[in-house]
This record gives sequence, C-alpha cells and structure tokens, in this order.
Amino acid sequence: MSRWKPDAQGRLISAAIELFAEQGYEATTVAEIAERAGLTKRTFFRYFSDKREVLFSGSDELQRRWLEGMAAAPPDATALAIVVAGLDPVAEMFTERHDFARIRAAIVEANPELQERELIKLQTLAGAITAALVERGVSANAAMLAAHAGVTVFHVAFAHWVAQDDPTAFRRLIDESLAELRSVTAA
Amino acid sequence: MSRWKPDAQGRLISAAIELFAEQGYEATTVAEIAERAGLTKRTFFRYFSDKREVLFSGSDELQRRWLEGMAAAPPDATALAIVVAGLDPVAEMFTERHDFARIRAAIVEANPELQERELIKLQTLAGAITAALVERGVSANAAMLAAHAGVTVFHVAFAHWVAQDDPTAFRRLIDESLAELRSVTAA
Repeated sequence: MSRWKPDAQGRLISAAIELFAEQGYEATTVAEIAERAGLTKRTFFRYFSDKREVLFSGSDELQRRWLEGMAAAPPDATALAIVVAGLDPVAEMFTERHDFARIRAAIVEANPELQERELIKLQTLAGAITAALVERGVSANAAMLAAHAGVTVFHVAFAHWVAQDDPTAFRRLIDESLAELRSVTAA
Repeated sequence: MSRWKPDAQGRLISAAIELFAEQGYEATTVAEIAERAGLTKRTFFRYFSDKREVLFSGSDELQRRWLEGMAAAPPDATALAIVVAGLDPVAEMFTERHDFARIRAAIVEANPELQERELIKLQTLAGAITAALVERGVSANAAMLAAHAGVTVFHVAFAHWVAQDDPTAFRRLIDESLAELRSVTAA
C-alpha cells in the first residue's frame, strides 16, 4: 500500500480538531493526531511545522479567496466596496466549516499566545488587502483605512457567527456588521 | 552622592534613542545605554525588562491619555466621537516627541519582530478603547468597530507624521485621516 493518501492535509485537520474537542488542545500530541488520521508523524510534519499550525492552516486560503473576490469587483467600485466584494467567497468558505470554526475559536480564546498569532494573521491580511487596493489605483491612505475597516467588519461578524448555531448566517452577519460600521462612522 | 536621580527613566530613554540613532538599534547594548545616561545597568533593569521595552515605554501612557480624553467626551457623543476625543491628549503627547518617534519608527520599520510587537500593542489599545465604550453603554459591536476605526485613523496619521518635518502636524493629520475614513465608509 502506498503511503500517499488523498487529502492527507484535510484528514490531519479533521483528526486534530476531533482530538482538540475530545481531550483539549494542550493535551493533544502530534503523534495522536497522525494516528487518528491513519498517517505517520512524518506525514504530519510534511504539512504543518507544529500542532499550532493546524489551527492557522485556513489563513492562506482565507487571504487567497478574499483577494480573488476583490479582483472580481467592478472597476468603478469604491475602495470599501472592493474590500467587501472579497467577503463573498470568504463567506462561502466559512459556511462549510462552522464546526471547525467553533472548536477552533474556543481554543484560541483560551490561549493568549494563539490570540496574538490570530491578530498577526489578521494584520497580515489587512496588509495584503491594502496592497491589492493600491495596485488597483486606490490611494495608500484610503486603501489602508478601507482594508482595516473590512478586516474589522469580518472579525466582528466572525465572532458572532461562531457564537451562534446557524452555519449559513455568516453572509448576513457581515452585512449587519458593515451596516453598523457605516452607522458608526457617519459624520 | 545618592544613586537616585530625578527622572532616571526619561534619561535612559533619551540615552537609548541617541545611541540607536548613532550606531543602530541592534549594535546598542543595555550597558552602553546606562553609561550614556550616567546610571547603572541595575537601574536600567528597574525600569525596563530589556532594550526593546525602551521603544514601547510610551504605549501605557498613550493608552492612559487616550482613555482620559474619551472620559472627557460629552455624554451624548457618538461612539466614534468619543474615540476621537481621546486623540486630543494623544496629539499633545506626540507633538513633544517628534524626534523620538521618527528614530523609533525607522527602527520598528526595519525589524519584523518589533513590527509584530507594535501591532499587538495597537490591538491591546483597541481592546481597551472597546471596553471603555461598552462601559459607557455603547453596544459591543459598535464599540469594537468604532475602536478599531479610531486606532486605524491614529495609525495612518502617525505614519504620515513621522514621515514629515512638522512636529505640530499630528492633530491636522488625524483630522485628515478621519475625514478620509468617513469618505471611504460612506454608503
């Protein structure tokens, strides 16, 4: 039997999140995750540098989808409308991952080091969105303000989404968060 | 002669920033900073856990001033107006520290680890502003959105202020950054 298995990464993530939910994040070892996924530790380390990275494996995809959504925005869209267009594919991605997101959110919430890492990932995302806006001809100031506003809208909607039961609510929560931002910043 | 000197902390900060400008941040040791300030290493460690902390010694004061300014906002001010009221004492504090801020900004810019620490400090600040708004009766959502908007406005203005020569421009740059945020988020 070949040691190669389809979607080894996906199986490692599922196994990890099952074990984190069953016995806690701290108590779970890489060996246990690999065993539960029916793979070796060596295979685990082909995909993740450590246990923590399993929790952040979605952030590259989040950024890629967000930027793809922005690229599809009409040429005459305002800076914030471009950023918000990125949230369509993001909402789609997250809707399929409500269970993962809820377990993950509880782990991150309980661990200051993971919270820091989460913040850095969000800032990196805001930086990539800013760069994509500037690339489209938006001024650096407006780009930075729109990017950070969009990431905060996402962050607020995400916190609500993991706190409630309906996986499909993410898109609606983003719209509510955006409406609230507009109301808060209205002169 | 007593080993106690008035404003040892201020002298250590001035000495450090002089040495960082002269010979670089990496090349400067705690022993050199203490010597330049006419103090001992032991005194240095009474105020700072390491060399890096000299660069972040202003963040507690920034937060304290920002929250004091918010406390002075009228009871009927909107969430964002309360946050912006906090920037009056902040602008005053920074106007006196343009040289320090410029040297510091160049050091942070060149060092990814310091950039991360800066981002975490800004997020901590946004958290404290959110909590102060909630305390005043603002909803958690509006508080988080207004706090992050305010911190982004500050961050954008700060980047412009350290890139130009007039120490007194900070307040005006904040107003410009705020106007741009309002324009970016207008429906």
